[in-house]
Amino acid sequence: MPLNESQFQSVCSTARRAAIFHSAADALEWDERTGMPIAAGEYRAEQVSTLRSSAHQLRTDAHYGDALQELLQHSGDLDPHSDQAATIRSLHRDFVRDQKLPLDLVTRLSVATVRGQQTWDDARKRDSFAAFEPALTEIIALKREAGSRMAEGTSRSVYEALLDEYEPDAKVDELNPVFSDLKQQLSELIVAVTDSPQQPNVEPLQRSFPIPSQRAFSRDVAEWVGFDFARGRLDETSHPFCTTLGPNDCRILTRYEEHWLPSGLFGTLHEAGHGMYEQGLRNDWFGLPPGSYVSLGIHESQSRLWENQVGRSRPFWDWLYPKAQQTFSGQLGGTELEDVYFAINQVRPSLIRVEADEATYNLHILIRFELEQALINEELSISDLPEAWNQQYQQCLGITPPSDADGVLQDVHWSAGLFGYFPTYTLGNLAAAQLFDAAAESLGDLDGMMSRGEFAPLLEWLRDNVHRHGRNHSGSELITAATGKPLSSDHLMRYLENKLRPLYGI
Amino acid sequence: MPLNESQFQSVCSTARRAAIFHSAADALEWDERTGMPIAAGEYRAEQVSTLRSSAHQLRTDAHYGDALQELLQHSGDLDPHSDQAATIRSLHRDFVRDQKLPLDLVTRLSVATVRGQQTWDDARKRDSFAAFEPALTEIIALKREAGSRMAEGTSRSVYEALLDEYEPDAKVDELNPVFSDLKQQLSELIVAVTDSPQQPNVEPLQRSFPIPSQRAFSRDVAEWVGFDFARGRLDETSHPFCTTLGPNDCRILTRYEEHWLPSGLFGTLHEAGHGMYEQGLRNDWFGLPPGSYVSLGIHESQSRLWENQVGRSRPFWDWLYPKAQQTFSGQLGGTELEDVYFAINQVRPSLIRVEADEATYNLHILIRFELEQALINEELSISDLPEAWNQQYQQCLGITPPSDADGVLQDVHWSAGLFGYFPTYTLGNLAAAQLFDAAAESLGDLDGMMSRGEFAPLLEWLRDNVHRHGRNHSGSELITAATGKPLSSDHLMRYLENKLRPLYGI
Repeated sequence: MPLNESQFQSVCSTARRAAIFHSAADALEWDERTGMPIAAGEYRAEQVSTLRSSAHQLRTDAHYGDALQELLQHSGDLDPHSDQAATIRSLHRDFVRDQKLPLDLVTRLSVATVRGQQTWDDARKRDSFAAFEPALTEIIALKREAGSRMAEGTSRSVYEALLDEYEPDAKVDELNPVFSDLKQQLSELIVAVTDSPQQPNVEPLQRSFPIPSQRAFSRDVAEWVGFDFARGRLDETSHPFCTTLGPNDCRILTRYEEHWLPSGLFGTLHEAGHGMYEQGLRNDWFGLPPGSYVSLGIHESQSRLWENQVGRSRPFWDWLYPKAQQTFSGQLGGTELEDVYFAINQVRPSLIRVEADEATYNLHILIRFELEQALINEELSISDLPEAWNQQYQQCLGITPPSDADGVLQDVHWSAGLFGYFPTYTLGNLAAAQLFDAAAESLGDLDGMMSRGEFAPLLEWLRDNVHRHGRNHSGSELITAATGKPLSSDHLMRYLENKLRPLYGI
Repeated sequence: MPLNESQFQSVCSTARRAAIFHSAADALEWDERTGMPIAAGEYRAEQVSTLRSSAHQLRTDAHYGDALQELLQHSGDLDPHSDQAATIRSLHRDFVRDQKLPLDLVTRLSVATVRGQQTWDDARKRDSFAAFEPALTEIIALKREAGSRMAEGTSRSVYEALLDEYEPDAKVDELNPVFSDLKQQLSELIVAVTDSPQQPNVEPLQRSFPIPSQRAFSRDVAEWVGFDFARGRLDETSHPFCTTLGPNDCRILTRYEEHWLPSGLFGTLHEAGHGMYEQGLRNDWFGLPPGSYVSLGIHESQSRLWENQVGRSRPFWDWLYPKAQQTFSGQLGGTELEDVYFAINQVRPSLIRVEADEATYNLHILIRFELEQALINEELSISDLPEAWNQQYQQCLGITPPSDADGVLQDVHWSAGLFGYFPTYTLGNLAAAQLFDAAAESLGDLDGMMSRGEFAPLLEWLRDNVHRHGRNHSGSELITAATGKPLSSDHLMRYLENKLRPLYGI
């Protein structure tokens, strides 16, 4: 029996309506983080939760679920990567997952994580893990319950079911060997870098760079690499992010530091990378799987590729540096490109993930990935977490956090219930390197293009190989299709070795 | 039988939920007018209409209407100005009105006015009333149909039913004598002013006032008079307005002209007046009648009072001018207060309503009020409108528009279906003068307070006598209660005479 076309349209129409509510909520949250009056928070939370629950109601409606079930049964003849098949599979999958979580559990999780973030914020200020422990214990218990329910009837483990929310179809058994290869090789490289007598001088980047000039320069850079300002905007906020409020409305947000030029510049390139992915999704499928990003890992690959593979490359700086010197002539006029290039590629073990360089960053992630698995699998008791954290930091990065505030309490994620989220950062770094190599192979002289400020061919390649596929393939299928092989640590390691060994003379 | 308390709560909860959807739509519209990417308009329109129709659905639900009907039947013992009585009366009234408009008519009106505004915009650019006439004809026919339906079963005329949407319970028979008094007296005063050899020199206000300085100064002025920035913000847009996105989230928007200081400064005071009204409404009744503005006329009275009765007064400038001279020392350092005070109170017949001074402004309105009544009542054919417009301008203001673009095509209102809206501007001007006099009488030395920059007592008086009553009284009841008599033209005329005669030496 062929697919019931009108049933398919009706399901799409419900999902599009839900997307309207979600995108309106996203707009309210964007506003909340860019300049909402301070007293307006309470009602804003009510608006957002009403809109999101209106969307949730639509997408958990029994008739909607029945229609998806029927469509799924009759979609056997479709190409599994076609728009229709992907739409049915992905919406059905979301429906099944949402159905598995009783409203009561969803509510308890929501309350626990809202409170959890407040408790965490307070505990971090007081540098007291003990103050956060009860909240974390409750959140982990609830996440474990949610994970167990979502894993029911599947081959997934509890942790995998949680990971699945951010990285659909990712398998821990496939990630573990890739990540452990990476950890091994990366640690060796970082030791060599750290031990080298040749070190960069970052002082030129710490001079006073007036924020209005940084703002104008960052906007230009975002536009030059390909972010479309007719379909998006760039604003400022305390915790940079990217959000999409409609098919032609992508908002990226960054943060400038007067005495640290890389913060605003690379932050903007990072968010522009996210933004260009969103701008490359298909407008006609907005709010539906073929027009949605495939996974957080692939999303992060796009931001990292533009921030690092492009933004910290020598050819890019051959092109950008004269412009930077023109804008910041007082600050950079007398500094050689060589020196700035070394400074923006400094690698140095440090305590704080969000301030880490592109090499050590992954060790921060791998530590969290191991610890959160152990917590969810009850192999590590919550009270032992700070000690385990500090041991790992000493072992992997050679430093022991002097306080929990700068150690186990530094990230908001666990307090917000985000278990299974961290590994997507490193997946993104691996995918960025692998995709960039494939693009370079396909485009020929990519270095030459970058040194002439020609970014359109690279963006076009990403459009064709990543963006326009939406959710029609899984993240790992996409990587294999685009690069000819499954995700590995080889490309990231080769990229880092090729860059860092000459710079550090090792 | 006493009121069913749980039924009352259920009705309120529905109305509050509808208000959440409307306020989310308002937030999206605010964003649309402050910096949304240019390509994002189409989806934004879909978001806004989905949210508004979700609200409409809630407030036209049959069970909701039945509950209101029952509550109304049992509310006879309540004080008619109590929160409960006002809530029931006003929500019931909205329900009945909305029920009278079939969905099909609402949709046709919405399509016709969206298209109408585009057609108008285009026709104005081409200076062709003929290009707008078919669209206007359709809109008037639809508004007449809507008005007839809304008037059914009431004592209202068709025009009154339209007016009622903006100025509930206003009666044309009561407005007409007040407006015709005003027209008569105002025309005489304006002739005298125009004929006077003593005229202001506005050149000092046309010097170059850098926009960043204007922005900072206007923000200070808004804060000094009492706009609360913890619960609101001030932004820029091409057509200034005020919108409220939540009980603690009032947004005012203004526009600066480098070579015309009054534009940004009085625009800000005007919007701050609107904003302070919204900020004075009761938070606990947000989205319900006791926490809603009563009418557009009363809303306008608050903006006009701060813009004109306060902002263009001599005591205010005694206090403000030294500050203005400090901010704009290069531009105003050598100009006497006398001269600036005369310049900001210039009265001069002109073509364009939105650029008119506080005296001639009302003639612009009265012309529109008469013409739109004649159109709705079919006493004037649409093709004769431009000629009727030009005749009125010649008769009332002594000038004939050289083009339809600067004549009958200058306002967006009719193309947007806003018939019955214009008179609320003049109602606001009348009410502003009358309320200000009552406040002055009650507060004693209001001039002295203003000259010392003390605005809190005046704001407090407005809070007590206007803001906190929400919709518990009608607009005209509110004026009578606050000032001891019904609205008349006496106070505005006396205010203008007292100011203009000495300035112009007449």
